[in-house]
Amino acid sequence: MKATARAFAIQGLVKYHGLRDPRLRLPYHDSISVCMRALPTITTVEMDAYYARDEVNINGRIPSRRELDRVEVVLDTLRHMAAKRVYGRVVSRNPEVDGKGLGFSASGFAALGLAAATALGLDPGTKRLSEIVRLGAGSASRSLVGGFSIWYASRKRHSYAEQVAKPDSVKLRTIIAPVKSALKTDTAHKDSVSSPMFKARLRYVSAQVSKMKRAIAKGDVPRIGAIAEEDTLNLHAVTMTGPAGIILITPVSLAILHEVRRLREEDDVPAWFSLDTGPSVFINTLPGSVEKVKRAVGKLTKELILSAPGGAAEILDEHLF
Amino acid sequence: MKATARAFAIQGLVKYHGLRDPRLRLPYHDSISVCMRALPTITTVEMDAYYARDEVNINGRIPSRRELDRVEVVLDTLRHMAAKRVYGRVVSRNPEVDGKGLGFSASGFAALGLAAATALGLDPGTKRLSEIVRLGAGSASRSLVGGFSIWYASRKRHSYAEQVAKPDSVKLRTIIAPVKSALKTDTAHKDSVSSPMFKARLRYVSAQVSKMKRAIAKGDVPRIGAIAEEDTLNLHAVTMTGPAGIILITPVSLAILHEVRRLREEDDVPAWFSLDTGPSVFINTLPGSVEKVKRAVGKLTKELILSAPGGAAEILDEHLF
Repeated sequence: MKATARAFAIQGLVKYHGLRDPRLRLPYHDSISVCMRALPTITTVEMDAYYARDEVNINGRIPSRRELDRVEVVLDTLRHMAAKRVYGRVVSRNPEVDGKGLGFSASGFAALGLAAATALGLDPGTKRLSEIVRLGAGSASRSLVGGFSIWYASRKRHSYAEQVAKPDSVKLRTIIAPVKSALKTDTAHKDSVSSPMFKARLRYVSAQVSKMKRAIAKGDVPRIGAIAEEDTLNLHAVTMTGPAGIILITPVSLAILHEVRRLREEDDVPAWFSLDTGPSVFINTLPGSVEKVKRAVGKLTKELILSAPGGAAEILDEHLF
Repeated sequence: MKATARAFAIQGLVKYHGLRDPRLRLPYHDSISVCMRALPTITTVEMDAYYARDEVNINGRIPSRRELDRVEVVLDTLRHMAAKRVYGRVVSRNPEVDGKGLGFSASGFAALGLAAATALGLDPGTKRLSEIVRLGAGSASRSLVGGFSIWYASRKRHSYAEQVAKPDSVKLRTIIAPVKSALKTDTAHKDSVSSPMFKARLRYVSAQVSKMKRAIAKGDVPRIGAIAEEDTLNLHAVTMTGPAGIILITPVSLAILHEVRRLREEDDVPAWFSLDTGPSVFINTLPGSVEKVKRAVGKLTKELILSAPGGAAEILDEHLF
């Protein structure tokens, strides 16, 4: 059977950092994100006895051994659940944006999980499926459920995500500035756990999760933006104090951060920056300020993508092959 | 009487951060720095009954009220010690470099203290004088004693500096890239104490001080450079996680950091970056690699200053007025 799913990449709001169990991708703490409607991943999966092994193509290329291993973990789990020994063809496509830290591993594995489950005739339910896609990429659990969502580190011995607010319940607009980088997200996650600041982050972050949940419930964009900006600096502080001293931001992203601050402090524009584990910048703002932000930040970088919050992963009728 | 002193600005190696007592400038932890021979401050002080009040001129301008208050604390302490109620004229001059975070408040107060003490006919001794200049700027205690020096947070209830190695005992060369900024160092010191990472820094930093002392004793430049670079990221991590989320580096300084890393990792050049509480960059290297570093970093910024370690503050024969 063949099925196609679409999921949206995520912007971490209270970002997850470090894995307590890297194999099962169990995080140290809860985290919150919002899906980005402008960043969809579409994935088609065909499961058929015709295939002698899984054939995977992501954005027109064969993935690396490491990427393939992550795909296999999700497919094997679903095959095991369906009790079917069948291989398949996977074709996945992201929008053509050249940036690192845009959350596409989240949307990629969310779309993969939903498409593969459907192709295998399974309906494990959102909660169970969010646990399965988590095995490929932690944030995929949140991308799957969509909107504003929380990923629980551990709840009754399960680690899964739950939507806390619908995508259009908050008047959030995000201007995304993709920035390139050769760094691997996984390296930063591994390294930062050994930072002398890591335990301080764990203590700090649980309070931030509660604050963010309240801000989202109220639809308070300025508060959401401010907490996400603070969490960004906290996350990057931990990353750069790990043994490898990883500096994820580049001069271009730093110029954008300073400009967002200047806009807010001097021009009174409601805008807050947010970066995941990478140099690409998300600028959170209100619908009425989108043009001002785009004009100012457009002087520093060519490519800007405007996004509203996006919904849950869903099945599409048209296939990629 | 009139006296002129010269002191060298410092590069923090294990940097001090935050003040346990801001009025007495008592730090939370020991810190280590090295004087920069290429960054001298010269200060002439004349104490004479002729003056109805202190007349202070720094780099050709009258200082702000806040700066003047800091000068007065040092002068008043020395006047009290000398039991002389006399005012004076103070003229101080730094080299013409336009950068923030170059350690000139250290050399400024070290030169001021030595010149003023001499003008008042005092000889309080280096240890006592380093405590006095500390009241103007914490790092002045280290600038006064010169070379590679440690500033004790508290030793038998005194907070002063001591030279741990002579300037030419270590084959260190530093290429200094001045970068401008409007931020006040004091703001960063105040803010960072409230960072959720601050306590983690305190635990971390004492081990770093011991490591740095050993590296200096061995004249091990690569080790000195590596510890200073790690401490830089730790310091900036704390600053950016304070309530104001202060980002001290600018796009130019960040481009230099990435280039130094690239030089080291790809071209095998022994070079390590170090920043104090500001965006200006110190690049520590060995004499044989100075030209390579200058050539690479010279593509990113116009002004580069080469420095060897500098000595203690000393009295000069020629006056500024």
